[in-house]
Amino acid sequence: MPAPFPHHYETSVQLEDQSHAEGILTSAEELPLRVGPPRQFDGRSGHQSPEDLLLGAVASCHMTTLVALARRKAVPIKHYVSKALGTLEKTKEGLRFTSIKLHVEASTDAGRESELTSLIEQAETHCIISNALRLKVELDIGAIRGE
Amino acid sequence: MPAPFPHHYETSVQLEDQSHAEGILTSAEELPLRVGPPRQFDGRSGHQSPEDLLLGAVASCHMTTLVALARRKAVPIKHYVSKALGTLEKTKEGLRFTSIKLHVEASTDAGRESELTSLIEQAETHCIISNALRLKVELDIGAIRGE
Repeated sequence: MPAPFPHHYETSVQLEDQSHAEGILTSAEELPLRVGPPRQFDGRSGHQSPEDLLLGAVASCHMTTLVALARRKAVPIKHYVSKALGTLEKTKEGLRFTSIKLHVEASTDAGRESELTSLIEQAETHCIISNALRLKVELDIGAIRGE
Repeated sequence: MPAPFPHHYETSVQLEDQSHAEGILTSAEELPLRVGPPRQFDGRSGHQSPEDLLLGAVASCHMTTLVALARRKAVPIKHYVSKALGTLEKTKEGLRFTSIKLHVEASTDAGRESELTSLIEQAETHCIISNALRLKVELDIGAIRGE
C-alpha cells in the first residue's frame, strides 16, 4: 500500500567543483550521486547528467509502474529491458527536448504475451514522470516473448 | 562548446528483482545505478526512485546551467546548494506532481550578490529539464551571501 497522499519528495545538490560544474546529489535513503554536465555539454564522464537523470526517471517509472500493475494481475515478468532516448534541439524558444522515446522489450509465460503488452501500454499511461512532462513519451513496444 | 545539435541521450533500465520492482539503470559513461520504487510506494531503501531522479534532474540542471552562465560573466560561485521538493497528489486525472519547488542558497564575492541572484533566476529560465515539465518549477532564492 502506498503511503497516504500527498507524498513529499526531496533531493538536494551541492556544488563541489565549479571548474567542471560537478556536484553531489543526495536523496532520502539513497547513496549520494555525482552529477555534472553530459559530454555533449563538455562534461567529464563518471557522473550522472540532468539529461540522463530525466531519461532514467522516465525509464524506471515505467518499470516500477509495470511491475505494480503486473503484480495486481498476476502476470509474471521474466525479463524486462527498456531504453529511453531523448533528443535535445535548438528551437525558437531555446534548447528543448523535442522527442523522448521509450523502447520496451519483455517476456512472460507462453500464452500471456498479449496481457503483458497491454500492461506495458497501461504502465506508460499511468507513469507519473511521463505525466509530468510537457511532451508525450512515445512508447515503442519491441519483442514481447512467451517462454 | 556544446556538441552540435541535435543532441541524443540514451538511458536503459533492466529489471533485476521483480519482487521489489528493482532494476539497473545504465547511461553512457556513467556508473550503473540501482533503481526502484520510493519508500512512499513500498520500495526498499538503497536505490534511486523515479521521483528522486526527476527532482535530481531539476536540481542538477539548475546547478550546471548556473555554472555555465556564471563562467560566461566571470561571477565566482563560492558555495551553492539547492533543494528540490516535489509534491505528488491524487487529482481527477490520477496521481500527479502538483508542485515542484527549487530552493537555492549560494555565495559569491562580496559586492556581487545581486549579479549572482540574477544568474540564479536566469539559470532556472534556461534549464532544459524545467522547460520539459508541464508544471512550472517554483524558484525560491534563499540567502545569497558575499564573502
